[in-house]
Amino acid sequence: METPVGVVDLGRARENVERAVTYCQAHGIAWRPHVKTHKSLEMARLQLELGATGLAVATAHEAEVMSAATGDLLLAHPPASAAKVDRLCGLPRTVDLKVGLDSIEVLRPLARGAAAAGRTFGILVEFDAGLGRTGVVEPAEAVRVAAEAASLPGVRFDGLMFYPGHIRMPRSRQAGRLARLSERIGAFVAALRQAGLPPRVVSGGSTPTMWESHLLAGVTEVRAGTCIYNDRDIVGMGAAAPEHLAYTVLATVISVAVPDGAVVDAGSKALSRETLGSGAPGYGVLFDRPEVIVRAINEEHGILDLSGTDWRPTVGEQLRLVPNHVCVSVNLHDHLWGIEGGDSAARPVWLEGRGRLRVPAGAGPPCAPTRSASKW
Amino acid sequence: METPVGVVDLGRARENVERAVTYCQAHGIAWRPHVKTHKSLEMARLQLELGATGLAVATAHEAEVMSAATGDLLLAHPPASAAKVDRLCGLPRTVDLKVGLDSIEVLRPLARGAAAAGRTFGILVEFDAGLGRTGVVEPAEAVRVAAEAASLPGVRFDGLMFYPGHIRMPRSRQAGRLARLSERIGAFVAALRQAGLPPRVVSGGSTPTMWESHLLAGVTEVRAGTCIYNDRDIVGMGAAAPEHLAYTVLATVISVAVPDGAVVDAGSKALSRETLGSGAPGYGVLFDRPEVIVRAINEEHGILDLSGTDWRPTVGEQLRLVPNHVCVSVNLHDHLWGIEGGDSAARPVWLEGRGRLRVPAGAGPPCAPTRSASKW
Repeated sequence: METPVGVVDLGRARENVERAVTYCQAHGIAWRPHVKTHKSLEMARLQLELGATGLAVATAHEAEVMSAATGDLLLAHPPASAAKVDRLCGLPRTVDLKVGLDSIEVLRPLARGAAAAGRTFGILVEFDAGLGRTGVVEPAEAVRVAAEAASLPGVRFDGLMFYPGHIRMPRSRQAGRLARLSERIGAFVAALRQAGLPPRVVSGGSTPTMWESHLLAGVTEVRAGTCIYNDRDIVGMGAAAPEHLAYTVLATVISVAVPDGAVVDAGSKALSRETLGSGAPGYGVLFDRPEVIVRAINEEHGILDLSGTDWRPTVGEQLRLVPNHVCVSVNLHDHLWGIEGGDSAARPVWLEGRGRLRVPAGAGPPCAPTRSASKW
Repeated sequence: METPVGVVDLGRARENVERAVTYCQAHGIAWRPHVKTHKSLEMARLQLELGATGLAVATAHEAEVMSAATGDLLLAHPPASAAKVDRLCGLPRTVDLKVGLDSIEVLRPLARGAAAAGRTFGILVEFDAGLGRTGVVEPAEAVRVAAEAASLPGVRFDGLMFYPGHIRMPRSRQAGRLARLSERIGAFVAALRQAGLPPRVVSGGSTPTMWESHLLAGVTEVRAGTCIYNDRDIVGMGAAAPEHLAYTVLATVISVAVPDGAVVDAGSKALSRETLGSGAPGYGVLFDRPEVIVRAINEEHGILDLSGTDWRPTVGEQLRLVPNHVCVSVNLHDHLWGIEGGDSAARPVWLEGRGRLRVPAGAGPPCAPTRSASKW
């Protein structure tokens, strides 16, 4: 295998999907995994076959690609331009698209476009769960947007959406924030009920809070996506065990010239320069030797810190690295290699959801992209 | 224009190239820009037309793509696997490839492959300029690798290479490190001369040290690549002025629901999560309002800090963002838009050098990739 390249342990990915489905089914919660992590039709279909109820996407391109896998899509990102609305209106008629948004300014043009196209989009009003990113802050504002959605042609008010991205500490320390979030969800649900707009859906996140979702009263579905592969950050929080790591970056040692150091060919264009919320140093760790961190990174270089080990790699040796944040690492590769029972069985895992270009309407069934040929 | 997308001010890019050529020619230094920044055949050809003497690349894919623009290529990254050597040996015969490396372990298989393919690669022995990444540390080790290169069929000893990546402070504070580097270059050159292996080439970096290259005695060429576009980091160091910023990410405001904040659709999958060496916060700034920083980032969200301004954007408004590090931002896009005299004249700037897949040998002249069609 040429390096650097992302590698998926297909058996572990399947087990991770099964674990998510089992948890969600035990608690009566729907699992709508976000495809941003894997960007792959194959992985999306695996999730749906094993029990995911639909998919969440962030871009029009992801929606177009994933419409080949399911008709139950949630765009969890406000489409705030005419170009995006136009693409959404061009999705196959088999798609029942839900859209998360937090303003009348996004809602009205979306409804107008949908009505003109003779279709109806479901609307989830997003509220800010505490991250301070997107989402209305006051229940009264959620009622205002929901009432507008309920009154406009082209859209249908479905419920609420939130993203608890501020809850990224170890699971053992989440309790206080989860309790406050539970209260906050309750306040938004109550306000909508009082206004005669009871939410049918309350859509939450996230892999760090995945296994506590049942503690959040009223949540009907979760969008946790990272849990199909996991990464150093998720393991560090205790939201996955090391044996749940299903994605690594295969790299080759290119230099050991500097004493007590070793350099691999996976840098910020293979691992990404994501840092850990915990403040722990480095940009990844060795899969087989987690005491060895990637202490520094350039575009095509990762510098290993060998100060804590007697082990010394040799030039040409291949190593597997666990990135801090899997979703952005996956997005850097042309395709991944899927392995099951060893490298000899490696086969490509395609990343049809990468990029942003419009997928032609009426295109045939998705197949392997032929990118190398398409370059010339 | 759909967002997020990278945008090149073509006039500024041309001026930046002209400035680099003018400086280098005035000081008798060759400019061999690294294509990692732009990944574009069009930009490579612009550099060569205006006076660049050749190109530097980091990957076999970049070498394959850029062989359509010039026969004078330097792979500034040790090819430490049989797969990479095989690809280099398959480059068009018109390419006189130079390779930077720091070990006998990389040199010998490369020479063997080249000899078997009936070709000769130039060798630049890399020494560590102070970054502690790649490169031999002692002059005696450089002599050992150089002597081996001079003795093996398939390779030709050409000289030295270094990367001064540890010199990233403001230009006003570089003097001490530049003086020590100059001494270090002198020591390596002297050792090679004494061994009867005088280097014909001494290849240096980098955009942060670009305009001080003439102070480094013995340097014959520089590989500065970022200077075609520049970024927040480079401007912060004083190695470019704000009016030399030729690359921005166009983004759309998707939410202003959270008080005193605004969120755009450019996140870590459009800007990247690169931080500044200076320790200044944020992941980018607004092009037109540099007092507004991107204070936080998620994959498809950039959160603007409006605390230092009375300006308030509206949902749907398009903004241009200056990333911290342009090279990794460019690498995240399907293609860029080139503008000259306003958006109405926007046209695609292709990124043929992105990715790692093998470019088929004997492929025709490069043309616009048809990626959207190739997905299905």
